[in-house]
Amino acid sequence: MASVRIREAKEGDCGDILRLIRELAEFEKLLDQVKISEEGPCVVGYGLYYFIYSTWKGRTIYLEDVYVMPEYRGQGIGSKIIKKVAEVALDKSCSQFRLAVLNWNQKAIDLYKALGAQDLTEAEGWHSFRFEEEAMRKLAGK
Amino acid sequence: MASVRIREAKEGDCGDILRLIRELAEFEKLLDQVKISEEGPCVVGYGLYYFIYSTWKGRTIYLEDVYVMPEYRGQGIGSKIIKKVAEVALDKSCSQFRLAVLNWNQKAIDLYKALGAQDLTEAEGWHSFRFEEEAMRKLAGK
Repeated sequence: MASVRIREAKEGDCGDILRLIRELAEFEKLLDQVKISEEGPCVVGYGLYYFIYSTWKGRTIYLEDVYVMPEYRGQGIGSKIIKKVAEVALDKSCSQFRLAVLNWNQKAIDLYKALGAQDLTEAEGWHSFRFEEEAMRKLAGK
Repeated sequence: MASVRIREAKEGDCGDILRLIRELAEFEKLLDQVKISEEGPCVVGYGLYYFIYSTWKGRTIYLEDVYVMPEYRGQGIGSKIIKKVAEVALDKSCSQFRLAVLNWNQKAIDLYKALGAQDLTEAEGWHSFRFEEEAMRKLAGK
């Protein structure tokens, strides 16, 4: 088994990352919702994060996606990506690290819980809502 | 009944907004999680939003909080705040408008659905997860 290195993404990784974003959406059975396209070759996983804000807790890191290609799973790469994001969160003075997971993705849920995360939907009842473009246009009268 | 105007926040509103953030957290039965303090007087509701990113859909607006003081409810102020946020979302080319709600807050859920939002936790099974500071420190070995 080749050794795997967790590193920051570079501009040249865009094609690979896009490919992985599509693989992740396919795994999530929601590929039809992906509106971006363009293909490319060779990186085995990614974590895409950004910074958000909580009125209660301040600066927060949000892990939008974490994904490892099927043939590279079971080597702890996902955990390493999550650990890397936790390091970035602490370096940037974030008080929490948030992410979302589908309720049928038990392997991911088990991993996140094993790593110390709490399921806020289960514990506190938070539900995620979305207005799509048509609903926004109706609301705005446009 | 006095007329109500929906406007952008100004720097001088900080005290009022903080007061409303605390009222909202109290309503959500999670006031103990609010780590900020300082008090002030006189604005009757607020919506706090920022921009996030979806790897599937691109630029997204996120409504972190929407709140109206109890004595001003039932006048459509919450709906007006949401409509204003939808306008901002369209002006800023967002393809979606997201927010989170507690599953016992039926009035808010009914309102969001009536305004055209979809419950993604119900429809697709999304659960929100959080690592708190202690969990992040363990992950990062710090």
